[in-house]
Amino acid sequence: MAVFEHRFRVRFQHTDPAGIVFFANILVYCHEAYEEFLRASGMPLEEFIGKREHSLPLGHAEATFKRPFRAGQLVTIKLSVGRIGERSFRLEYDLFGEEGEHLATAATVHVSVDRATGRSIGLDQKVRAILEKYAPPPA
Amino acid sequence: MAVFEHRFRVRFQHTDPAGIVFFANILVYCHEAYEEFLRASGMPLEEFIGKREHSLPLGHAEATFKRPFRAGQLVTIKLSVGRIGERSFRLEYDLFGEEGEHLATAATVHVSVDRATGRSIGLDQKVRAILEKYAPPPA
Amino acid sequence: MAVFEHRFRVRFQHTDPAGIVFFANILVYCHEAYEEFLRASGMPLEEFIGKREHSLPLGHAEATFKRPFRAGQLVTIKLSVGRIGERSFRLEYDLFGEEGEHLATAATVHVSVDRATGRSIGLDQKVRAILEKYAPPPA
Amino acid sequence: MAVFEHRFRVRFQHTDPAGIVFFANILVYCHEAYEEFLRASGMPLEEFIGKREHSLPLGHAEATFKRPFRAGQLVTIKLSVGRIGERSFRLEYDLFGEEGEHLATAATVHVSVDRATGRSIGLDQKVRAILEKYAPPPA
Repeated sequence: MAVFEHRFRVRFQHTDPAGIVFFANILVYCHEAYEEFLRASGMPLEEFIGKREHSLPLGHAEATFKRPFRAGQLVTIKLSVGRIGERSFRLEYDLFGEEGEHLATAATVHVSVDRATGRSIGLDQKVRAILEKYAPPPA
Repeated sequence: MAVFEHRFRVRFQHTDPAGIVFFANILVYCHEAYEEFLRASGMPLEEFIGKREHSLPLGHAEATFKRPFRAGQLVTIKLSVGRIGERSFRLEYDLFGEEGEHLATAATVHVSVDRATGRSIGLDQKVRAILEKYAPPPA
Repeated sequence: MAVFEHRFRVRFQHTDPAGIVFFANILVYCHEAYEEFLRASGMPLEEFIGKREHSLPLGHAEATFKRPFRAGQLVTIKLSVGRIGERSFRLEYDLFGEEGEHLATAATVHVSVDRATGRSIGLDQKVRAILEKYAPPPA
Repeated sequence: MAVFEHRFRVRFQHTDPAGIVFFANILVYCHEAYEEFLRASGMPLEEFIGKREHSLPLGHAEATFKRPFRAGQLVTIKLSVGRIGERSFRLEYDLFGEEGEHLATAATVHVSVDRATGRSIGLDQKVRAILEKYAPPPA
């Protein structure tokens, strides 16, 4: 089961007066990993948006925070594909610090929507092919 | 069961090239409702942070998005207390548009942590008293 | 000379580990005042964007910070029109704390651009009429 | 005259409904270049904040935008030291796209402040030494 890795540094302005990263920024980091995953797979999000007939809005997001993230820290996100459905898919994220400590887990569910009607439709075949390279083996 | 309401307008810069609010900003809006809830209860977060011996970092956050949020839209958040535990509490949020349409649900779990040791401890009594005013009736 | 006022509260997540608002957020607050100014004048930005043949990207922005902005503080922005040119206009902002203390000044220059060609063009007449109500008297 | 370079990719969530980067984010990118400049010089901002007796809040910021920044674009910032004063310094930034096109210029002025009194004081000697490596030759 393939895993996509994205590494980044926690920015000064992402931390709050308590000295730790504001929780919503951790979901922003996960979205950056998703952007880099699509880019590395040959389908950058900025080309996808507004050009294809399917859009992929988020239907759900969740995160569990195990340890605080601090300014200046290098973090590695391991992205994997949790589920590929008929009209949606789920990505899972594990975030680790420099010494391998587990900082957080997160997941996002992306829904395939027909741009014209706003209704859910079957996943774009190119998107499905990219996801299948990272998919868990069938149960 | 008491509910706290917070109303705000979706800002231009919170929306992305697809014309809808970037998902992580919806959790930011929920945190703003939490800030206003504490302020209205006489315990503004900015006085709490760095002054009390307990801090309240988030342990978990989740959101389900039902309809897109658009720039300029007025949104009402209804915040309620989902659970009060020994060392943590859960807040729940329902977000509605101007015609009462249900836009999203979300929840955050806040953990009471001893500032000196970094370990979880029993909830501050003043925080507990505020939460109990909004708590669900005992099962 | 008319002045448009916008009042807001500094959010917890806008402040950094030094306990004060990250400087770029102060320009975000000014843009929110500009959004409210357009809305109050009957031309909300979200209706303007993507619908008119003119767009109004920023050509310049500047700010001078006199006192720190802290979480929870109520701030009033006074927006005035500094200059109306043939193809651009300049807005000026003064930011004040609750006791009238002067926190910052800022200015933004907005350029009228033809959406199709990307070149600057004369200001939209409706925009010009709105600005003139707030304009300084002719020299 | 030494120049420090920082390269980054424009993120999806930094762009607005008009499809271009929200102007205040361009100043955020400049601050990231400043953070990397300090880190590369052996004095990361996160170690500086809250630990030294001097703090370095911004006193002024300005930017002129020449071309739109788009999602997915790779941008290079060239940071140079514009002026080293007794109690403040000025950094200058030029931002370039992948084909060398000039996207924007910006500048920030940082003031040395005594943490205890809140008054301006002479620059920390270690900060001054770092800046002088990048300083313009004396006039």
